[in-house]
This record gives sequence, C-alpha cells and structure tokens, in this order.
Amino acid sequence: MKLIEPRNLKGFRDYLPKDQIPRSIIFSKIKRVFERFGFEPLETPVLEYADILSGKYGTEGEKLMYRFKDNGQRDVAMRYDLTVPLARVSAQYQNELPKPFKRYQIAPVWRAENTQKGRYREFYQCDVDVVGAEAGIADAECVAMVEDIFSELGIKKFVVKINNRKILNAIMLASGVSEKKILEAIRAVDKLEKVGASEVISELKEKAGLNKDQAEKLIALASTKISNITALETFVRKNLEKQSQAETGLEEMQKVFVSLKAFGVKNVEIDLSLARGLDYYTSTIFETVITETAESKKYGSVAGGGRYDKLIELFTGKDIPAVGISIGIDRLFAAMQDLGLITGEGVVSVLLLNIEKTLQEEYLKILAALRKAGINAELYYTTSDIKKQFTFAQSKSIKYGLLLGLDEAKKKAITLRNLESRKQKLIKTKDLVKELKKLLA
Amino acid sequence: MKLIEPRNLKGFRDYLPKDQIPRSIIFSKIKRVFERFGFEPLETPVLEYADILSGKYGTEGEKLMYRFKDNGQRDVAMRYDLTVPLARVSAQYQNELPKPFKRYQIAPVWRAENTQKGRYREFYQCDVDVVGAEAGIADAECVAMVEDIFSELGIKKFVVKINNRKILNAIMLASGVSEKKILEAIRAVDKLEKVGASEVISELKEKAGLNKDQAEKLIALASTKISNITALETFVRKNLEKQSQAETGLEEMQKVFVSLKAFGVKNVEIDLSLARGLDYYTSTIFETVITETAESKKYGSVAGGGRYDKLIELFTGKDIPAVGISIGIDRLFAAMQDLGLITGEGVVSVLLLNIEKTLQEEYLKILAALRKAGINAELYYTTSDIKKQFTFAQSKSIKYGLLLGLDEAKKKAITLRNLESRKQKLIKTKDLVKELKKLLA
Repeated sequence: MKLIEPRNLKGFRDYLPKDQIPRSIIFSKIKRVFERFGFEPLETPVLEYADILSGKYGTEGEKLMYRFKDNGQRDVAMRYDLTVPLARVSAQYQNELPKPFKRYQIAPVWRAENTQKGRYREFYQCDVDVVGAEAGIADAECVAMVEDIFSELGIKKFVVKINNRKILNAIMLASGVSEKKILEAIRAVDKLEKVGASEVISELKEKAGLNKDQAEKLIALASTKISNITALETFVRKNLEKQSQAETGLEEMQKVFVSLKAFGVKNVEIDLSLARGLDYYTSTIFETVITETAESKKYGSVAGGGRYDKLIELFTGKDIPAVGISIGIDRLFAAMQDLGLITGEGVVSVLLLNIEKTLQEEYLKILAALRKAGINAELYYTTSDIKKQFTFAQSKSIKYGLLLGLDEAKKKAITLRNLESRKQKLIKTKDLVKELKKLLA
Repeated sequence: MKLIEPRNLKGFRDYLPKDQIPRSIIFSKIKRVFERFGFEPLETPVLEYADILSGKYGTEGEKLMYRFKDNGQRDVAMRYDLTVPLARVSAQYQNELPKPFKRYQIAPVWRAENTQKGRYREFYQCDVDVVGAEAGIADAECVAMVEDIFSELGIKKFVVKINNRKILNAIMLASGVSEKKILEAIRAVDKLEKVGASEVISELKEKAGLNKDQAEKLIALASTKISNITALETFVRKNLEKQSQAETGLEEMQKVFVSLKAFGVKNVEIDLSLARGLDYYTSTIFETVITETAESKKYGSVAGGGRYDKLIELFTGKDIPAVGISIGIDRLFAAMQDLGLITGEGVVSVLLLNIEKTLQEEYLKILAALRKAGINAELYYTTSDIKKQFTFAQSKSIKYGLLLGLDEAKKKAITLRNLESRKQKLIKTKDLVKELKKLLA
C-alpha cells in the first residue's frame, strides 16, 4: 500500500491544542467585549457567488482571491474579508435587521498571498461593524472596543491611529493629485512607514502623476504632527481651506472625538499619513500598533478598519453609512507570545492515574462523579507504566493527579497530587469533589 | 450603475443574530462537555491537498467533494468531514501529540449535496475523537458525552443506538454475503429504517449477490431485538458461531458495556441493523435519535460515529486505533426549535434611549460606566422618534430600557423600564449599576 504523505498546503496551518487553547481564550474575550458594546453575532458562508466579492478589493485583491467553478459550473469565491459579506447581508435582509445593525463575526478568510513574506493564506479576522449610523459614536465605539480588548488581554501600551479619508483626499488634491489618481496616491502613502519617504515620492511621481515639489509637499502635509482635535482644525483651516471635503472630514473627526472623550478613551492619536490599503474607505480610518517594546512595532497594524459609506450602495442603490474595525488575531497572538502573555494553560484539570487492574470500575465511577460536578477530568485508559501516565499529564498541562491503589481503596481514600509541585496528600474519597472544587476555584 | 443582486449560493445560509445567538450558546455547551471529558480543541485548515481527502468517503462522497485547482495549480479540496483531517494530523504530528490524543473540533464542512432533499452544502459538525485507544472506555465516553450534552440542552428523550461492524460483518457472512460484497450489503442495510425491508432485500439481491432466502435471513438476523449485552452474547453464540470476527466484536462490545454501566449511562440500546454509511468504520458504531415526540424521529441521527481502526494507517503504515462521535448541529437545532427549546434570548441587556439632544455627553458617560461594570449595553445613536427606539430594542430582545430626560437629570436619577412588562421606576443614577447587576444576575 502506498502511504499518503500527511502534509499541509503552503500558507495553511493546523492549530494543535497547545496553540488552539490560548487562541480560543482570546476569541472568547474579544467576543465578550463585542457583546458588551451591543454587537450581535452573524455568520455568513465561506463560499459566495464571485460577483459579490469581485471588484471590491482592488486589482491586487482580485488576483489573491480563491475563485473557482463549483460542480454546477457556478463562478464562486472563498470569503476574502468579512466586510463585503456583511454589506451583502445588510442589503439582502434590509427589512429584517435591526437599524442600525451592529454585528460581529469571528471567522477565517482566504487570500493567496506570497507566503515568503511570512503571510498566511488562511487567517482569522475578528470584525465588528455598525451599518446605518453616521460618523460619530459608532466610530468612537470601534476605538473604545480595541482599548477594552487590549486591556482584557493584558496589553498595556498601544496606540490607535486615526485619520479621515476626506482629509487625506483633500491633502492629495491640495498637493496637485488629480481626482482620478487619488487611490493611486493613497496606496503610495500607505507604504510611508514601511518603505520611507523617498520611495513613496518616487511612486507618487510615477503612478500619481506628481512632480517632485508636489510629491514632497504631499509628504510634508501628511507627515504634519497633529497633537489633538483642535490642532487638526488649525491644520485644515491653514492648509486645506479650498478643499470642501476637508471641512466635512474635520466635522466628522470632531464628532468622533466628542464621543472618544466622553468614553474616556486614552490611546488614540491623529495620524494624517494613515491611508489604509483598501479602496472602499470613505471617511474615518483606524490602525492599531502595539508599542510595548521597540520590537512590537514589527507586527504592524493589529486592528484596523474604517468607514465605508458607499459599499452597501453597490447592492442596494441606496446610501447606507457603515463603519467597522477588524482585529488581526494572528499578529496579535504572535505579539502576545513575544510579550509573554500566552500561558500554557490546559483545559483538563485532573488526571485519574490508572494503576490497579482490579479497580477499573471504581475509577470510572469516580471519574463520572468528578465530571458530574463540572470538573474537567480524565482517566488514563490503561494500566501502563506510571511514567508514561505522568508524561501524558504533562503534555496536556494537567495540574492534579489522583492515585488510587489497593492501600488507598482499603482506607476509602485517594492520593491527590499536585503534578507541578509534586506535593501530595491523602484525602477521603467522599471529600474529593469538594476538595478539588476548592483547589480549582 | 448596475446593482449586484445580494444573494446566497444554493445550499449555503446566513445565520442572522436571531439564529446565531442560540447556535452559539449550543456550541458553548457542547464545548464545555467535551472539555469536561478531557478533550482539547484542534483546528485544521478548510483546504487540504485533494489526495488527503480523496478515496476515504466512497464513490458518492468523491462526487460531492468541492475540489478545484488553486492559483498555483495544486489539486485542492474543501474539508468534507472532520475525521480525515484528524487522521492526517495524528500521523503528521505523531511525536508531538499526547498519547492517546483526545481532541474536539467544531467547524463547517462542505458537500455538494442535492439541495432538493433539504440538505445543505455547508454545515457544521461537532466532533470528538480519541486516537490511540482500543475499544472500551473511549467508546463509552462518546455515548456518555452525548447523554450529558443532551441533558444540558434540555432534550430528555433520546436513544444512542450502538452496534459493532465486526458483528454486522459476521451477520453478512453468515447470510451468504461474500467478503468482497460486504460494504455493498452494509450500504443496503443502512437504509433499512428509511426504505423498509422489501426494498433492502431487492438491493441485497441486486448489489450484494444474495438470493431471496439469504437476503431474508440477513434482514431477520439484523432485525433481532437485543435487549442487553447478555442477550447479545446469546445471539452471537447461537447464530454466528462460525464467524471468528463475531467473537472479537462481542468482546469489544462487552468492554464498552462495562464502562457504560460504570458511567451510569442510561439511554443506550443495541441495534444489530445499525450500519452507518461510511466505509472506514471497523468496530463500534453509534447513532442517536431523539424520541421526544413521534415527529422527532424525522431528524434521523443527530449524533453518530464509531471506531475506525484502519484509517490512520493510510498515512502512517502503522495500526492506530481510533473512535469518535459527531454531533450534527443543524438537525439538532431544528429538532430543538420544534421542541420549543430555542428561546429568543438576546445578547444585549440594556438600551439607553436617546431622548434629549443636550444630554449626549451624559449618555456616553453612563454607557461607559455600564460597560465597565460588564453589562452588555448600548445607546441608540440618534434622538429619533421614541417608537423607533423601542422597536430597535425589541428587534434585539433587549430587556431593559433607560430613560434620561431633563427632568430626571435635575433629580440625578434615571428611569429604568422593563421593556417586556412595561413597568418602570425612577432610580438614583449612582445606584444604576448596582440595580442593573441585581436584575441581570
């Protein structure tokens, strides 16, 4: 018989329990914060008709999509993000959904990225969006949620950068970019932090049709340090007076900042060079960087998003404003690992060691009693070598061992062993559940 | 602009919050029981190399697989069940995983089923498996878990049917089926409950090469009522004496029943006609039917599985025994809906109504305080018509409303309204969190 080689596709990963346990704790914490802010869960299919997804992510996105013909020759594609499916849902169930519609979704998406850049082709997004609310409280809630989530996860130093596409567009126009070239210029500026000013200037000259002076002016404007919302007003009045959308952008930002202040949000910073890659943003945009150590920045944005007031219109013909933020769990997890925030906690609390052949029935009864009391417990299935059993407990980070041999059985007692400290004591079998519950509380 | 019609692919569904909230509660309960039994979470990719999945599900399964060439011309397929990926993982990480490896996975799978039969093409499975343990305790744990899960979900009447493929094979051989035709005969018997004896007899004659007498003998043997494990022993001794695998099957069943008894499992029943469709089962097999009402049976098996001691060998060349059970959440959910076990619970507890333009900042501060106290709360974003706001609360099953107008503000108080009973009372703003926490406890 020819064996099948067990292997993964490039860019796809298995999460063994060691990683999946802490990931699933992170997901729960994120979910809890989302719900605390009034968001409800939504789930959409992995496969969509290709025309639902196509044309929303730019030329690069189009190439990275997993798109194929299904058995019925339908042109289908795998979910590329969680925003476009939400836009579809918002259009499709317009009359059934609460207005505004506040939903979260935690689910994988697929992009055929170049894996040499350390990117994955299957990764999770944790998205939260408000459909049907103008710029203001909803945008501020996105930032406040990130702050609460990071606090729950133990991340202390981070910054949510915020900008507004209308202001950025105005900067583009004021620097001489033509209406048609704005998206090109945005994509160039999006790389500013990664590749530096001189490369962005080259790209602006090449792709956005600017001369050197114009490109430099653009970079200078976008790099202006803005320390607070009043400083933004001054900047707009001084530099973008002739651009009417700058005024609208400023008003939106002011509304957002009123709410941010009332919520008591601290870790927020205006960054005029913040651009975001995707085409569909129209107003507020966010990105979040961890700043715990000099190293932490390498993870880039761990939570980004923004306002996309024109996306749902593609499905409905009606203007429906929307804003959201997406937490990139993979980058977040990697950063938390580096910061020592991922502990090797197991899900099983107690291992009943299997040491005496004649006590099998007794073991099973004790096991059933522990489980009935809500204790995560298991019995080693066979009376193997005790070392093997301890290794098993260790491989699952099980904290307590129970030893019941003939001696203990005679005394109607059981040995309870802390598998980390190796300390043990004999306790009455009838007190076992109570004792364990106390230890595990 | 041409609109894109918002729509789903046939056989694919969106879960709006109304359905996703109770589904996600069910998933949590199932997960909690799995962990109580010592199982850890595993996650595998949605896409696999096609040769990993291919050839494991029979000819029908092969046709239903979502299989395509990815952008790199790799032959890939979407996950068809959770068992084969587990077999791959067990082989691939042999030296890293605990032995035995007890894992659970709750995830969607894809099959291009005929949707006219009310089947879906994307559906969830909740699987729990033990890799590396012989027939006995592990098999009994599968049944005990189903019992605990159903009890947590409020389902009182159900039966886990159990059989053993070795005994079924022996019945086949004793009735004249040739070794080569056993799988054909099993697929025919699998339909017994659905299509009745006469159709199965026709199929046995046509596809398994039996004459009428042989086919009738087979059905008679498989239909024998077996009330307990002792009766099974008598049956095997009497009818299957010459079949050596019947003896092995009996021994396995006896081991499983010793554990079932010690665990105190009640809802289990031996059913010799239980066959299971998939080819890879080798020993113990299970199916679970709800028996609450005469109607409940129409959902068929809501939790099925068995032992597949030869599957992992395809990847390793080594014999590694394994057993598992899979809960079909869609059928379970439908049954629970019919039984009135799905309540319309929301995730948001409190809506702060937006009734006074000059109090926006105050509203946001109260909101932040509620959330800080762990209360799921939201503010209606705009000072719209109050009726609209109540409708919004209703659409999200929000139980409590808070009304703060200028009158209340003067008194440093707030009106707390039960949105179901419409009873309301004025409380001091400083007591709000305490009061709500008491109500929500």
